[in-house]
Amino acid sequence: TGRRSLSRSISQSSTDSYSSVYSDSSEDESSPREKQQKTSKGLSDFCIKNIKQAEFGRREIEIAEQEMPALMVLRKRAEGEKPLAGAKVVGCTHITAQTAVLIETLSILGAQCRWAACNIYSTQNAVAAALAEGGISVFAWKGESEDDFWWCIDRCVNLLRTFKWRDMTHWIYKKYPSLFKRMKGIVEESVTGVHRLYQLSRAGKLCAPAMNVNDSVTKQKFDNLYCCRESILDGLKRTTDIMFGGKQVVVCGYGEVGKGCCAALKALGAIVYITEVDPICALQACMDGFRLVKLGEIIRQADMVITCTGNRNVVGKEHLDRMKNGCIVCNMGHSNTEIDVASLRAPELAWEHVRPLVDHVIWPDGKRIILLAEGRLLNLSCSTVPTFVLSITATTQALALIELFSAPEGRYKQDVYLLPKKMDEYVASLHLPTFDAHLTELTDEQAKYLGLNKHGPFKPSYYR
Amino acid sequence: TGRRSLSRSISQSSTDSYSSVYSDSSEDESSPREKQQKTSKGLSDFCIKNIKQAEFGRREIEIAEQEMPALMVLRKRAEGEKPLAGAKVVGCTHITAQTAVLIETLSILGAQCRWAACNIYSTQNAVAAALAEGGISVFAWKGESEDDFWWCIDRCVNLLRTFKWRDMTHWIYKKYPSLFKRMKGIVEESVTGVHRLYQLSRAGKLCAPAMNVNDSVTKQKFDNLYCCRESILDGLKRTTDIMFGGKQVVVCGYGEVGKGCCAALKALGAIVYITEVDPICALQACMDGFRLVKLGEIIRQADMVITCTGNRNVVGKEHLDRMKNGCIVCNMGHSNTEIDVASLRAPELAWEHVRPLVDHVIWPDGKRIILLAEGRLLNLSCSTVPTFVLSITATTQALALIELFSAPEGRYKQDVYLLPKKMDEYVASLHLPTFDAHLTELTDEQAKYLGLNKHGPFKPSYYR
Amino acid sequence: TGRRSLSRSISQSSTDSYSSVYSDSSEDESSPREKQQKTSKGLSDFCIKNIKQAEFGRREIEIAEQEMPALMVLRKRAEGEKPLAGAKVVGCTHITAQTAVLIETLSILGAQCRWAACNIYSTQNAVAAALAEGGISVFAWKGESEDDFWWCIDRCVNLLRTFKWRDMTHWIYKKYPSLFKRMKGIVEESVTGVHRLYQLSRAGKLCAPAMNVNDSVTKQKFDNLYCCRESILDGLKRTTDIMFGGKQVVVCGYGEVGKGCCAALKALGAIVYITEVDPICALQACMDGFRLVKLGEIIRQADMVITCTGNRNVVGKEHLDRMKNGCIVCNMGHSNTEIDVASLRAPELAWEHVRPLVDHVIWPDGKRIILLAEGRLLNLSCSTVPTFVLSITATTQALALIELFSAPEGRYKQDVYLLPKKMDEYVASLHLPTFDAHLTELTDEQAKYLGLNKHGPFKPSYYR
Amino acid sequence: TGRRSLSRSISQSSTDSYSSVYSDSSEDESSPREKQQKTSKGLSDFCIKNIKQAEFGRREIEIAEQEMPALMVLRKRAEGEKPLAGAKVVGCTHITAQTAVLIETLSILGAQCRWAACNIYSTQNAVAAALAEGGISVFAWKGESEDDFWWCIDRCVNLLRTFKWRDMTHWIYKKYPSLFKRMKGIVEESVTGVHRLYQLSRAGKLCAPAMNVNDSVTKQKFDNLYCCRESILDGLKRTTDIMFGGKQVVVCGYGEVGKGCCAALKALGAIVYITEVDPICALQACMDGFRLVKLGEIIRQADMVITCTGNRNVVGKEHLDRMKNGCIVCNMGHSNTEIDVASLRAPELAWEHVRPLVDHVIWPDGKRIILLAEGRLLNLSCSTVPTFVLSITATTQALALIELFSAPEGRYKQDVYLLPKKMDEYVASLHLPTFDAHLTELTDEQAKYLGLNKHGPFKPSYYR
Repeated sequence: TGRRSLSRSISQSSTDSYSSVYSDSSEDESSPREKQQKTSKGLSDFCIKNIKQAEFGRREIEIAEQEMPALMVLRKRAEGEKPLAGAKVVGCTHITAQTAVLIETLSILGAQCRWAACNIYSTQNAVAAALAEGGISVFAWKGESEDDFWWCIDRCVNLLRTFKWRDMTHWIYKKYPSLFKRMKGIVEESVTGVHRLYQLSRAGKLCAPAMNVNDSVTKQKFDNLYCCRESILDGLKRTTDIMFGGKQVVVCGYGEVGKGCCAALKALGAIVYITEVDPICALQACMDGFRLVKLGEIIRQADMVITCTGNRNVVGKEHLDRMKNGCIVCNMGHSNTEIDVASLRAPELAWEHVRPLVDHVIWPDGKRIILLAEGRLLNLSCSTVPTFVLSITATTQALALIELFSAPEGRYKQDVYLLPKKMDEYVASLHLPTFDAHLTELTDEQAKYLGLNKHGPFKPSYYR
Repeated sequence: TGRRSLSRSISQSSTDSYSSVYSDSSEDESSPREKQQKTSKGLSDFCIKNIKQAEFGRREIEIAEQEMPALMVLRKRAEGEKPLAGAKVVGCTHITAQTAVLIETLSILGAQCRWAACNIYSTQNAVAAALAEGGISVFAWKGESEDDFWWCIDRCVNLLRTFKWRDMTHWIYKKYPSLFKRMKGIVEESVTGVHRLYQLSRAGKLCAPAMNVNDSVTKQKFDNLYCCRESILDGLKRTTDIMFGGKQVVVCGYGEVGKGCCAALKALGAIVYITEVDPICALQACMDGFRLVKLGEIIRQADMVITCTGNRNVVGKEHLDRMKNGCIVCNMGHSNTEIDVASLRAPELAWEHVRPLVDHVIWPDGKRIILLAEGRLLNLSCSTVPTFVLSITATTQALALIELFSAPEGRYKQDVYLLPKKMDEYVASLHLPTFDAHLTELTDEQAKYLGLNKHGPFKPSYYR
Repeated sequence: TGRRSLSRSISQSSTDSYSSVYSDSSEDESSPREKQQKTSKGLSDFCIKNIKQAEFGRREIEIAEQEMPALMVLRKRAEGEKPLAGAKVVGCTHITAQTAVLIETLSILGAQCRWAACNIYSTQNAVAAALAEGGISVFAWKGESEDDFWWCIDRCVNLLRTFKWRDMTHWIYKKYPSLFKRMKGIVEESVTGVHRLYQLSRAGKLCAPAMNVNDSVTKQKFDNLYCCRESILDGLKRTTDIMFGGKQVVVCGYGEVGKGCCAALKALGAIVYITEVDPICALQACMDGFRLVKLGEIIRQADMVITCTGNRNVVGKEHLDRMKNGCIVCNMGHSNTEIDVASLRAPELAWEHVRPLVDHVIWPDGKRIILLAEGRLLNLSCSTVPTFVLSITATTQALALIELFSAPEGRYKQDVYLLPKKMDEYVASLHLPTFDAHLTELTDEQAKYLGLNKHGPFKPSYYR
Repeated sequence: TGRRSLSRSISQSSTDSYSSVYSDSSEDESSPREKQQKTSKGLSDFCIKNIKQAEFGRREIEIAEQEMPALMVLRKRAEGEKPLAGAKVVGCTHITAQTAVLIETLSILGAQCRWAACNIYSTQNAVAAALAEGGISVFAWKGESEDDFWWCIDRCVNLLRTFKWRDMTHWIYKKYPSLFKRMKGIVEESVTGVHRLYQLSRAGKLCAPAMNVNDSVTKQKFDNLYCCRESILDGLKRTTDIMFGGKQVVVCGYGEVGKGCCAALKALGAIVYITEVDPICALQACMDGFRLVKLGEIIRQADMVITCTGNRNVVGKEHLDRMKNGCIVCNMGHSNTEIDVASLRAPELAWEHVRPLVDHVIWPDGKRIILLAEGRLLNLSCSTVPTFVLSITATTQALALIELFSAPEGRYKQDVYLLPKKMDEYVASLHLPTFDAHLTELTDEQAKYLGLNKHGPFKPSYYR
């Protein structure tokens, strides 16, 4: 218990928000699956931690709504006709205030929604409660077991037309093949989910049109770059209180995620080195003023190592062994495989849990490295992600659902589609008022000169 | 109590570290003045919240030591001779892990230390416990009353030679005039404290030499600029989770604090406007690429207003009335006078406490402004300040104490002195190894050419 | 003549390099078409200004070679086999030191080259002389008439297989249809040329495979962005000696060109406003920290207006009329249509030619605006463009030629192709050694995990 | 002659502006001292190259006037009373369009001016002609011999009250001791000149009050930092057309000059390393995100080395020997001593003059380094310096002259003075309208709170 107390005390100085996210010791330990709960209106088709938290969750959702202006515009435009009237949507995403705004928007647009979590840790219980109280059939709580996870998805799926996201598609494909064939469409945002859809499509097993939202311009150019630029400093500060000025940082990978991280770190005075496998990104790193190195060459002098590759074992034991005392290691890439955390579970290494999501791994000679979030995603684990950026992706998803649901028979076949460029541009335009930004309109003469429609699309369809 | 629960729940999403700093509800409510406590060695000449927290506090101090390399070097150099042997030092500062490293360094250098807090809120109780357990006579706890505050200072002051800082000097001057006369020296870091010392000096009432650390190069050029650059984003993110990209920010004041804030905000994509009264700083703002405006001209379009002036009522009711819905208002300047918070206590305005240190003030028409830390210092209240930067100032203070204590009779008179430039340079050089930085040494020929001693000082004494 | 002398004298202070580029008064006035010239080896199949300038031109080419490392590597690799042996290549490009390095590389790779200029002003006569002396059949000089221009192209085209670039393709298509049918392939870099190729292709009139180099990653991501970032400041300084700090600049268009210009201008302390028609680029501008405005809203306070749109009449008479005295107007976009220069030829406006490529246009009330390069491309007209960046595009072109020439029968049909991603990556990798950059290689395990070949391509084919 | 022709030809591509500055071959070779010249009004008390160039020079002066708003304001304010009426001012400065605006301002304020050049190369002949034509007794031309230099100064000095600048003070002190005693005041801007004044003062030999303008805030904070930030890129581009992205640059010295250079280079994508002797500047470099190294450690990988130290032999033969092929070496510091150019005149090294102000120095193994301006100041030699920044210093000088001339008897003794802070602030405020910048004014309440006069000075006198 000394250990635990220690971490609580220390966390007071800066990060116990995270301890609370994960421990939440004040709540009861019983499984939601065993509880009978009802909303104030007597509804019970949901399964969450505690319906009494609904009021708190509602507040969080209201705050998020202020930063998601485009969805609010969609709601307003739907006052007359409901573009999703009659649609049955099942979803599987993180359950946070931001996705709650999306889900409730779909509901206001006319859809009947059933929802599960895509991650066993990330559900905000109060938000789930507010959704349930609002009439959404949500099946999710923080700290689900693997078995709970699939149980929730299964409970979601019973009558539906359109649905979205990775694990759920997989589940239906495996377990409810006849249902799979009746679906009207799929909207998928995750890298892995999109990958599976293309596999299904190539194998001729895709039974409904699917929209690949992951590769839309608004996702690629905004979500990755700006989200990481906004959250990398925050995640590091909240966990380690580190000073950035003059620190030597190695960023592994110079894709959009890496570019976002590097821009922020350099701007605050860090000295950034890049590792890359792709010559195009490598040359961009050089032109942008970063030294391109192999990790082994620079590892001894690094104060921080940040992975952004989408690859695995980018930081291996051989690198961890050579890091200097106090080096911080963390991951901004797509999963917890980038750092070889397993190799740190060796018997000769001691682990000290110093703060929530912060571990010291101690070598026999006393050298410590500071591992954040056990190698999982730093920004999702240890910082907030700007709601406004999430709004861009959420709006894209909503529009993709509307498009699939309302498209005339035959426009979409059993294939994977990218969002029409015009829709990307519409999503972008809905977010401009936040900045009091004034778009210029082409004159007729200019549109003719450029060979474009005055109202877009302005980009070629292959633009990305 | 609905209100209170609400704020606790919401805070889980990002900032309840701060609620705990201020509420600390798990601890007992009894006054430390009424308790009898003893260290493990039986000492009892201290007054703190709870000696049992010493172990936790020790850990925080150890973490801070890693970022305060110069003080550790001083400790090592003092292994042979103790430059402060025989010195009796009383101090009055924030009681944090960082100041604990300073206090314990003074102790290791030979001083006998007694210490009180300079702020009724800022004491880290666990750190105070660790100091007491380590043998320092410390009188401080978080949440002192005004009466407690002076009582602690009074308990500190009984037998002393050298001492430091603002309120304590004042107390001694007023209450222990004969003691005041016997002091060997005063080291003062705060703006206000220095101001009073100059007043005493001009009035011929200063009885001991005083060292003005506030105006040393290392304080001015590092503490203000870099500290604020590092902490402004952190403070805003932890309290509001705001996205910086594209936000319109007004920074009032372009001194070192303002420069630090603006550099960080601009680097992360905010659009920054400056207000200034001083034409020199104003011209710097222009050359640095900021629009110089009067607050009234720009207030309607501001997403954030940050005060950094050291002045009062810079943001007045007339500005607050005209801010747009959702505007964030906070202070990075020297005290809680810069924003006219009092004017917001008007009966027609509602306050809603949404998160620790975050209040919504609501106008009759529903407009909300978001006030942080009730107008007190944002970075001290809502973020951490980089230990390394504090280390620079702390080392300067330690050297100033050594200089005053060990200077030969007559070197210093009853006046206020600036630290010799050479000592500033020594402090800086002690901090270079952290960056693995390699200083170039002048050749004899070059030193002669420049008319300088090879080992400095390199700056003229008037450099600042 | 007072006028002319004036401009010569003033130009001494900073820009008469440009006057010399365009006036070159020391040279004789006779037309190259009427002259009989021979190289030192007795060759005469060329038409240029003056073969005696060959030595000087050679020196410029040698300097350029140092910054075009990838082409030098291709030359070295061709020492054994000649990938273009037997190829007959006709080209139509700017004739500068940089393109000379490309042309001579093709020659060393085995091609027999004939070349004409794509612009009547841009030929460096000395470089053309060096090419001719080196055995290339070049037909180009600075200051060609329209008739000369087509005459040169016609002289180029007699026996050929592969060829490249815009006007020449057009000429052959129109004038030598049977030749057009015998071509082995076309490599095209210009926007306009690519546009025409797609038109031909859609009309079923394209008789040979064509490679669209303009839309390759290396062109889009490097040429436009970095070229403009490097040259915008240079072009403005050389013509106007303007200070950037604190200047209010409007950049019309936030595509790659605009992004490059804005990055440089902001970095040097200018306050930049953007106008855009495309919501996606507009949102990027906002997130990057620029105010998005309509030109009319901001025009009165602008110190500079820079067009980067590819559109026409973006800066119209109504804007020019409202600019303040001393406002600088210039174009970094694709042609001289962006600023309505014609409207400035109005009788009530006076023109004063103050320096080469710098005109003051004076309103009746005395207001002057400063027009650069008469609205033509600022960086091509008034600054140098970094050779290294040109090297990337030139290498891409050389590889495209090799691919088309050596591809097995049937790989390419009568269509327009994008360069295979792998070749883009190869071009990039050839440029990394300049930066002493070290690429990381995937392990077998990682390649398998990512589903990639260890040696690329790393990007999906649709990446751009 | 092949050599010479070569350099002319090459220079056409980008820099023959400089050849013309230094060769000026069109002009006659006779010495101005032997010529008899008269202005159009018959005046002949001057000695310059060619009075016929006056019209061209006038135009350059008019252009400069537009960027020197503060001096124009002083002229306007002097329409009523002439604060320098009766003053006899002799000056010794660079003779450029910018100093011409200063000189003519002094004249308009009532002074009778006589002027000489402080540098044998830097005079703009046409500007000198315009000054002479305007009635100023100017003695200066480009390409003076050492003997000419002192002759010009001597011709300047015959009857005078107030005067300014380095060599001239020295000359009068040595040659006209009785005149020295009658002087009313001295205004000095150069580092060296100020140094000598303090020496004279300490030796008790200073006979008139002297104003040290070099150490005024407006000089230190603006002239050095912003001037270098604006001109470093320009100087490098005009001479070498180098691309900045990804280049490794060593900047020796991180004072204001070095800070300006580093800010610009880093902003354009260069990777910058710093060398420093002073720990305070060294620590700033670290915090600002630069690696602090010794020159010998990094020299092999440098693409450029730039000296900004004010010291001598900072780049020695041992460094030059180890540079890589193509390394660029240049100086932004105070004189031509920083690079050991003399060591490059060794017999085993060949020099090749490739462009005006650009030499290749070639080692026996073929390695070339590129030396700019033979180690003299890069920005004065090879780029323009922003007039607006010079305006700040020029205005300070004008105000210093007025102050010394009009101060009541006794205010200034035979000592060296710094400009009153209030005057610094006045200079700054005169430059704000250029940026359409709006200064905030203190309320009475605020001024009282701060203990300041509402109208300044706002800075303590020791602020710098």
